[in-house]
Amino acid sequence: MQLFSIKTPLIKPGDDMAGVLIDAIDAVGIGPKDNDIFVLAESAVATAEGRVVELESVVPGERAAELSKFYGNDPRKMELIIRESDEILGGVTGVVVTITKGVLSPSAGIDSSNAPQGYVVLLPEDAKRSAIQIRERLMAEYQCNLAVIIGDSRTQPLRLGCVGIALGCAGIEPVEDARGRIDLFGKPLLITRRATADNIVSAAQIIMGEADESTPAVLIRDAPVRFIKGSEDIPLISRKECLYFGCFEKEEQKY
Amino acid sequence: MQLFSIKTPLIKPGDDMAGVLIDAIDAVGIGPKDNDIFVLAESAVATAEGRVVELESVVPGERAAELSKFYGNDPRKMELIIRESDEILGGVTGVVVTITKGVLSPSAGIDSSNAPQGYVVLLPEDAKRSAIQIRERLMAEYQCNLAVIIGDSRTQPLRLGCVGIALGCAGIEPVEDARGRIDLFGKPLLITRRATADNIVSAAQIIMGEADESTPAVLIRDAPVRFIKGSEDIPLISRKECLYFGCFEKEEQKY
Repeated sequence: MQLFSIKTPLIKPGDDMAGVLIDAIDAVGIGPKDNDIFVLAESAVATAEGRVVELESVVPGERAAELSKFYGNDPRKMELIIRESDEILGGVTGVVVTITKGVLSPSAGIDSSNAPQGYVVLLPEDAKRSAIQIRERLMAEYQCNLAVIIGDSRTQPLRLGCVGIALGCAGIEPVEDARGRIDLFGKPLLITRRATADNIVSAAQIIMGEADESTPAVLIRDAPVRFIKGSEDIPLISRKECLYFGCFEKEEQKY
Repeated sequence: MQLFSIKTPLIKPGDDMAGVLIDAIDAVGIGPKDNDIFVLAESAVATAEGRVVELESVVPGERAAELSKFYGNDPRKMELIIRESDEILGGVTGVVVTITKGVLSPSAGIDSSNAPQGYVVLLPEDAKRSAIQIRERLMAEYQCNLAVIIGDSRTQPLRLGCVGIALGCAGIEPVEDARGRIDLFGKPLLITRRATADNIVSAAQIIMGEADESTPAVLIRDAPVRFIKGSEDIPLISRKECLYFGCFEKEEQKY
């Protein structure tokens, strides 16, 4: 498996993301091949889609004013978090934990890094749709089967530092189910779902850089994953089924 | 960046892990080069270290008997979980969430897959020490600077499927701190710690396979990460500092 970084000019609102990518790919001189996977940084995709907001233009409502005092963040950013998120679960000082577009997202995925001073970038409106559209453009251009994943960063419980997470994908199975397969000793495997799309984003982040590197895309070649024709939603689990949330929410299960 | 899978014969208790690896590397014909990183599956390392237990030989104590009824798991496995873990945090049916060797680990990291029928594999006694020792052997053999990471699988909050996690490493900075660097617009970056070691394990897991594939090792070449001479502990954060745990434990912070 090989990974290539694809540098682009600074992405601006209104840019044609697929077009920018095609120019960058051609400049690097990597001819895409069947089953190449492109990982795109959500902040670049969202910026191109115009999901950039000037904080000055946001008028915080009453709830935002209250919550921002409680969590110690900017009331205008809090207003955007309320608008963007499905649910606010709680938080620690400076960061509110939300479910946004179905996904567990600190601060509703709103990013002040890599946005101009005074602006923030919201998550792409619909990351799966963006992945599908960009994939179609790239496949038409290069006449081969490709996959696209829109990736973001997340922290893990009780760990320092961010790893990759997939927000939307097209052309691969996001989670591979190996139940029914056997282990090294011929016994059936028990827990065997692999978060392929998330692992691919983490791999891309090793070479992506989140700072001033302008590497919003990575091409991954010869990944032994399951390619599919269309796009599947990234499967989520309920809080009840989640090990970590299950630990805290089912009081009667605590020992 | 390139990844190569390294297949080995089935690892047995008492095997010399570094020796098995050297034979496998030589068989594949990849000559290790400066700054190559080896990711090793913890189950293979633990098996070689003899951390394999026959369940039949375990006598569950009173607490194990009680907890196993409560969580619906095997009382002998529960006894091992109690012995191995620092703390039991809670659980859902069939899985107990623990902190083991400082790391959040379902079922204390005890694995029944890829162990002979009736046996389980515990985590390596000290994954950092294992990484240091295997690294020294490999560096002496190949006369170049190498890094070693011992990796495992974990689920993420509210997501289906497993991603990679590093239990111990040697020769690289496990978490890179990019604070002080600037973003695309020249502003200082805010949240900028990258869990490099975890991302590298996730990348390796894409080609590793957890089933009957006998690929306990992956070589990663040209990874743009920070190499160090010795070994650092993988940094952990307290429950209070953790977004997810902070959400639930600080009741007064709930809104």
